[in-house]
Amino acid sequence: MSTNSINTDPQRASDSPSSTPVVKPEILKGTRDFLPAEMAKRQYTADIIRQAFTRFGYDAIDTPSIEYAKTILGKYGEEGNKLTYRFEDNGGRDICLRYDQTVPFARVVAANYQDLPMPFKRYQIGNVWRADKPAKGRYREFTQFDIDIIGTNSLVADAEIAAVINRVFADLGFTDYLIKFNSRRLMNSILDSLNVEDDKHTAVIRVVDKLEKIGVEKVKKELEPIISPATADKVMEIMTLTGSNEEKINALNEFDTSEIENFLALARGFNIKEENIEFDPSIARGLDYYTGIVFEAILPNVPIGSLCGGGRYDNLCGTFCKEKFSGVGVAFGFDRIVLAMEELGLFKNVGLNSQVLVTLFDEATIPNAQAILNDLQEAGVNAEIYTEPAKLGKQFKYADKKQIPFVVICGPEEMEKGEVTIKVMESGDQKTIPRAQVGEYVVGYQS
Amino acid sequence: MSTNSINTDPQRASDSPSSTPVVKPEILKGTRDFLPAEMAKRQYTADIIRQAFTRFGYDAIDTPSIEYAKTILGKYGEEGNKLTYRFEDNGGRDICLRYDQTVPFARVVAANYQDLPMPFKRYQIGNVWRADKPAKGRYREFTQFDIDIIGTNSLVADAEIAAVINRVFADLGFTDYLIKFNSRRLMNSILDSLNVEDDKHTAVIRVVDKLEKIGVEKVKKELEPIISPATADKVMEIMTLTGSNEEKINALNEFDTSEIENFLALARGFNIKEENIEFDPSIARGLDYYTGIVFEAILPNVPIGSLCGGGRYDNLCGTFCKEKFSGVGVAFGFDRIVLAMEELGLFKNVGLNSQVLVTLFDEATIPNAQAILNDLQEAGVNAEIYTEPAKLGKQFKYADKKQIPFVVICGPEEMEKGEVTIKVMESGDQKTIPRAQVGEYVVGYQS
Repeated sequence: MSTNSINTDPQRASDSPSSTPVVKPEILKGTRDFLPAEMAKRQYTADIIRQAFTRFGYDAIDTPSIEYAKTILGKYGEEGNKLTYRFEDNGGRDICLRYDQTVPFARVVAANYQDLPMPFKRYQIGNVWRADKPAKGRYREFTQFDIDIIGTNSLVADAEIAAVINRVFADLGFTDYLIKFNSRRLMNSILDSLNVEDDKHTAVIRVVDKLEKIGVEKVKKELEPIISPATADKVMEIMTLTGSNEEKINALNEFDTSEIENFLALARGFNIKEENIEFDPSIARGLDYYTGIVFEAILPNVPIGSLCGGGRYDNLCGTFCKEKFSGVGVAFGFDRIVLAMEELGLFKNVGLNSQVLVTLFDEATIPNAQAILNDLQEAGVNAEIYTEPAKLGKQFKYADKKQIPFVVICGPEEMEKGEVTIKVMESGDQKTIPRAQVGEYVVGYQS
Repeated sequence: MSTNSINTDPQRASDSPSSTPVVKPEILKGTRDFLPAEMAKRQYTADIIRQAFTRFGYDAIDTPSIEYAKTILGKYGEEGNKLTYRFEDNGGRDICLRYDQTVPFARVVAANYQDLPMPFKRYQIGNVWRADKPAKGRYREFTQFDIDIIGTNSLVADAEIAAVINRVFADLGFTDYLIKFNSRRLMNSILDSLNVEDDKHTAVIRVVDKLEKIGVEKVKKELEPIISPATADKVMEIMTLTGSNEEKINALNEFDTSEIENFLALARGFNIKEENIEFDPSIARGLDYYTGIVFEAILPNVPIGSLCGGGRYDNLCGTFCKEKFSGVGVAFGFDRIVLAMEELGLFKNVGLNSQVLVTLFDEATIPNAQAILNDLQEAGVNAEIYTEPAKLGKQFKYADKKQIPFVVICGPEEMEKGEVTIKVMESGDQKTIPRAQVGEYVVGYQS
């Protein structure tokens, strides 16, 4: 190759019309660009979660991001309707962006249940959109990780969902985590015992759900129009019980706590440690459709709210078909999990992809540099070649910016001797070794 | 536990309002649900492609699905504007769904170039939306895999893009594939030599781009209003050259073919086999912004069009900033790749996740079944427990439907002896072994 033979700089004026930039490179508030450093952390996290799901035999499904409005709207209350992105397409169809992954899942089950294995265990990882006012930690587009078991009334399924949460958190490296649970059934039976009418249960539960946000006094105030102060006191006494799981269960011995006890036994059977699971009579979960065990998982030492929540429902697909499907499921809040991992320093060893930069000395040595690269890649090492001969300092700067741990230098002299010089970027150590040993050296150094 | 203690069937009428299904569980034409069997293939494929990208040091970025209309519109011609999903959000903002990943990439580079390593190599995997008339293989929502190197004029970058295509295809299991390439620069120099005016080049190239679709005669017809019949004949003679790469280059010795030759040398340096790379003077790629090497990769024996296409451009971010960034990139058509792999039988060994189903005999043996499951999972085996005691036949049917290769049976007798019976679903073979050896047995059987 002649000098500059690899330079493709356009020689013709007509090839490169000089246009003036007209559009500011900005994005909508509440949406995000993810650059490589952030993406590496997100992918690391996502891969671990996905692996935990598959460890328990959950299979993936996916659904469209755009659906008929009739499918999406009316499932999340008035607030949900307001926050749903809705528009008319070119064909005059009434369309919405996916608001969550539960309603599409219900639709999929209704359309396919005769072909699905039952119980059906699926996970779904995808983006959802909310036409919300953006704020810290509140986005218009974000990723959800959902798991559900559908088609079974067995409490084993509820306990398995807890076991999956447990595995996800343990695999991510969390140690201090709490899988809190309660039972809607127990809540109802308590309200029954306190002579709260059936049709007031949902209203009471919705208020109680705000306990952590607004505190005991405000909850009592909001309960005033619904139940008597004495009843409210009794309810709050139960909701704020403290002590071990056993102590709380004992304190509630006037009610039927068998579901709580059976659930705990099954959770222990799945190797969930006592310190990671907590019966919390105040856990309510706002949504009306929960009918049994409800979940909320938190990190007590990282105050960013719940990382995961859900529960048992008994008629998921009612809008879409006559068959009744009960099941249990939870959604993981991906952004909060990534934030918590950052806070806990769990990304320390997560780097970018490239392990080795093979530098280019001049055009004549390019084939040799390519051969070194090929060898490295064949050895399973993620490696790249600098795209053009340039000052070594510039190439080192590139390696530094990309956090590439090793740089290979191979000028004409080294090439002739069949050697390379390899530099460890962190320590600055430099060593000359036979070319054939580069892959081995890098793999050995890292293990 | 007492009998039925794990049954959470709702006892209260109020827990399960009987609603009538009102919404047909259907989706928009041109969008798709992916059920587990299909998803497993797609994830297998996606993981291989992603790994090939990272092997060459490409890092991931991600951009929002929704962007300001001013960012998206006007970049893809009139056709593109028409096919872009566009709507007004609740705040009166003019919004579009992502149409491709190149324009968002240009925006990201314009907004961040001072912080990015240069050259910047990125991949992006995401969905794009087209308000198109759905047809076989034409979707309104589909996934694209993009790679680009930006910030270099070096032909090494062009060759590296070919090397990545080569690795993706080889890793996916394709053997008969062709990475076809051409040069816009060469095309222009040929048209110059034939005295075609500069301002007619783009029009000619656009027509030539249709060659494979409409054939030589129709292309000539469409060229009639632009260039003379004699010139059209000469152009078509060159476009339809046959023979080896060397023969074609020799046939064009009146033109400057140095870029083609240098590119081929660099591609060879990246270990791309001669039989997988073809200089094809008819490859044009419709888009106006290409200025150098252009690509198109096909499987000659699977007639579903190109699986991958792209090329070199010299002013990607012109709309968004004054800096000029040249680079080279390609997009992989994920659906076509999955289709081709299906056609070539490359998914034969791709199964669902679960390797073992631990059956439940009765409630009393649940803790023992859970312990077996825990052991299996600790041994790195994807395994699941049936969610409730049921007839074995029913549990086997479940395993069958989920393509689970092993089923573990452990009744009270086996439990007492510390044994399990394990059945290989494919052969029907059954064996009783010590409980502690289940993990080992499964791992050993499969390797």
